[in-house]
Parts: sequence; structure tokens; C-alpha cells
Amino acid sequence: MPRYKLVVEYDGTAFAGWQRQATHRSVQQALEEAIARFVSAPVRVHCAGRTDAGVHATHQVVHLDLDRDWRTDTVRDAANAHLRPEPVAVVAAEVVGPDFDARHSAVKRHYRYRILNRRSPPALDRAQLWHVPWALDTALMHEAAQGLLGRHDFSAFRAAECQANSPWRTLDRLDVARSGDEIVVLTAARSFLHHQVRGMVGTLMLAGGRRLTPAGVRAVLDSRDRARCGPLAPSAGLTLVGVDYPDQPEVARASQDP
Amino acid sequence: MPRYKLVVEYDGTAFAGWQRQATHRSVQQALEEAIARFVSAPVRVHCAGRTDAGVHATHQVVHLDLDRDWRTDTVRDAANAHLRPEPVAVVAAEVVGPDFDARHSAVKRHYRYRILNRRSPPALDRAQLWHVPWALDTALMHEAAQGLLGRHDFSAFRAAECQANSPWRTLDRLDVARSGDEIVVLTAARSFLHHQVRGMVGTLMLAGGRRLTPAGVRAVLDSRDRARCGPLAPSAGLTLVGVDYPDQPEVARASQDP
Repeated sequence: MPRYKLVVEYDGTAFAGWQRQATHRSVQQALEEAIARFVSAPVRVHCAGRTDAGVHATHQVVHLDLDRDWRTDTVRDAANAHLRPEPVAVVAAEVVGPDFDARHSAVKRHYRYRILNRRSPPALDRAQLWHVPWALDTALMHEAAQGLLGRHDFSAFRAAECQANSPWRTLDRLDVARSGDEIVVLTAARSFLHHQVRGMVGTLMLAGGRRLTPAGVRAVLDSRDRARCGPLAPSAGLTLVGVDYPDQPEVARASQDP
Repeated sequence: MPRYKLVVEYDGTAFAGWQRQATHRSVQQALEEAIARFVSAPVRVHCAGRTDAGVHATHQVVHLDLDRDWRTDTVRDAANAHLRPEPVAVVAAEVVGPDFDARHSAVKRHYRYRILNRRSPPALDRAQLWHVPWALDTALMHEAAQGLLGRHDFSAFRAAECQANSPWRTLDRLDVARSGDEIVVLTAARSFLHHQVRGMVGTLMLAGGRRLTPAGVRAVLDSRDRARCGPLAPSAGLTLVGVDYPDQPEVARASQDP
């Protein structure tokens, strides 16, 4: 019963999120059905980060158990052949030990959030951008972001339906940088609360527009009050870009062909 | 009769290319109809580069004449309002002199070509990538590319239907660089022959896969024989990313809000 670790990329636009649902198509369902077809048996995959509807991934990680020793190249290529034409791809596959758990073994998650900050709406990458048409000061956003780093009760940025046992999280990175018309937010933590990244980005947007000072953003955090959080940034701008495991501390270090 | 210069972004996937056609929807038609609706008169736009079906632009340039002095902000915003929901956006608008001609005044065009070079197919940006699943040596591709720089008869890379008077062109830039799984080709010239960029990229792909040496790529050029050109790289990977004019030599220097 070998265990496999897969790195998975997907466009979340057409899916109801990662997790299987009764009524709408999920990334998990697409992936499980594709693998089940080539192994001719039901398959269950377990992921590192259960992304919401519309959220993308360049580097989701899953584990699954198969009842035969399939070559890792075969698992990757057969899964991709059966996934076609869905916008989901297995980028890498490797055999891991029975203790590896995509969710519980993960020591850090990395997310990227993209904002298009110009008057004109996007024509390209529309499903991967939050369009904010008024001027945002990226330096102010970055300054405000630094006030959120460290270990805090993030209740102010937590969805009502969040199932985590504790609202305490340790935020390791929250960088805001501009490249032309695009503002990119990069963040990392061992784990995030449900909606935490999108809530933080929405609040930083207020700081960028001078509707909150950096101290005001910190006051939102300290209030632990969801009502004081900025608007929830749309899911389309968010992408899971990496998951780190012990002994594999580098993002996107998974072996890939060619 | 003021003349306006517009910078236009579009996703070319759903269009039959830039140029108006009898049967299929074109970017030109979408833009002309949107502007005609807000000025309540027929409008003709003239572009710097007539992109093929499936080719994108972040920085196409057009000029058009209007019969009233509309504010440039109004032209941009009203065009965008009437373009919705088509994947075409006016990114910038300015008033130019009567001698400005988007096509004939241009002194340099810049194109980008994106190749996804990994075994697994793309799940994100599928309409903006050429997927090449076998290993490509980017250093060899770049070396071969340098042999195409300068003034040459580019007949080997010219479409049969090309309408240019002469096959001679001066290639100023053809750089090949890898970023992770993605290979990006950046090229610039005063003008290109029809299919020249896609033909050059297809031929460089052969060099990257060691099916042609850099000297062999140069021999294709020198042969002036279209039959010796590599495969035509798919249109989806290609994006027009800049057009330069005298006194405005920088790419993407157009004033943009915010």
C-alpha cells in the first residue's frame, strides 16, 4: 500500500473549491475520479490546503495510497491523461513514507495574492486578479502588513464558518510589492485561518487607499473583531503557491520534468 | 477632428485576430463598436500590429479620429464601459497630432512568447502558453537566437500570405530565458513579417531540443526557404507587449491611472 505525494496545479475558476461537495464539482472530485479511472478502484486524496471556490494553485500538495507500486511517472502522466480537459494538472509525483500526511506534515503554506491597480479593468488574467481602480500606496500597504507578523489571535480576519480549534496563528511573511500596474502580496505561515489571507489583503487595501493607517490595521488585529476587518478580497486573486515539509524546506523544490 | 492614441490590452483567445472580418468577431470590431456607441457615430481605429487569431496584447497601440474634443479620461472610461464584458480594455488614451499614425509612426514592436517546458500540461494560463513536454536547453536556444539578429532576408520565417513588400527586416532583440518551468522569448524589431516571430520560436524550439544546432538555425535563415523553418509556434503563446514611437522610446511608458 505505497503512499504517493503529488504536486497539483489548478485553475479554480470553474470549481466549487478543493473539497468534495454534494452538488458542485470540486478539484478533489476531478482528481480522485481521474486517478480512480487508471487504477480501476476508488481513491481518496488528502490535501495540504483546502482552497475556496475560485482560488487557484500552482503548488497544492496531496497524498494518497494506492494498492500497487505504480511508477511515479506513470501516476503523474496517467492522472494528467484522465484529467483532460479539466484545468487540473499533476506536476510532480513521488513515493513517500506511510507517516507522510499532506496536511498534518506541512510546516508552512505560501500564498500569493494579485491586485490589478489601475483605472482600466483587466482584459488578460481576469480570473486571477482583483481589480482595484483607485490609487493604492504600496509602501503603506507593506508597512501595515509588517504589523501583522508574528503570533497573534487572528479572530478579526477569521471567517464565521472557520473550523480551526484556535484563532492563534503565527504569520511569518506578508510582503507587498508593486510591479507596474500589479500589486503582489506574498504571505507564508504554518497554517492560516479560513479567509485569513483574503481578510488581511482586503484590510491592507484600505491602508493603501489611506482609509486606514498602518496603526489602524494593527488596531483591527488587536480588536479580534471580524466586523472591523476590511472587505474580503475576492477569491480569484488568491493562489496557493507552495507547501513546505520537513527536510524539504524550499518552496517549489519538487522534482519536475524535464 | 482631434486624433487620439489608445493603448489597448486584450485576450485574443475568442477573437479571429485584430482585423475586421466578414464572418468572425475581431478585436478591431469590438473596439470600434464600443467607441461608436458612446460617440454615436461610426469610428475607424488603426493599429500598430495586426495580431493573428489567438494572439494577445498587453500594449497594442491604435489611433482614431473623433469629431469632438472628448477628454482622454472619458474616451478611456467610456470605451471600457461599452466594451464590457469583452476581454478588451483601453489602458491609456492621449491626444496626438494629426501626423501620428499608429502603424507608420511606430519605430519598434516588442513581442513576448511563453513556452511551458515540463512534462505536465498547463492548468493555469492555458490560453497563453505553448506546452512543450520534452526537455529544451534554453542556453542553446538563446545562442541560436543571436545568429538571427541584424538585417536579413527573413523569407524562411515568412507566411505564404504575408503582404509585406520586402522580406528584409532588422531584428534588434531575440532573448531566450528560463524561469522555472517557463521559457520566455522576448523579441523586438521595427516591424516583423507575418508569422515571423512564431516561425523563429518554432525553429528555436528545435535548437533547444538538439534537433538543430545554432549553426543549423542560421542555415535555415540563410536558405530563405520556408520549407526549412521549424513548426509554427501556436498563436496562444504570443503577446504584443509594446510599441515604441519617436520621442517616446520606452515600452509601456504610456501614462496610466492611478
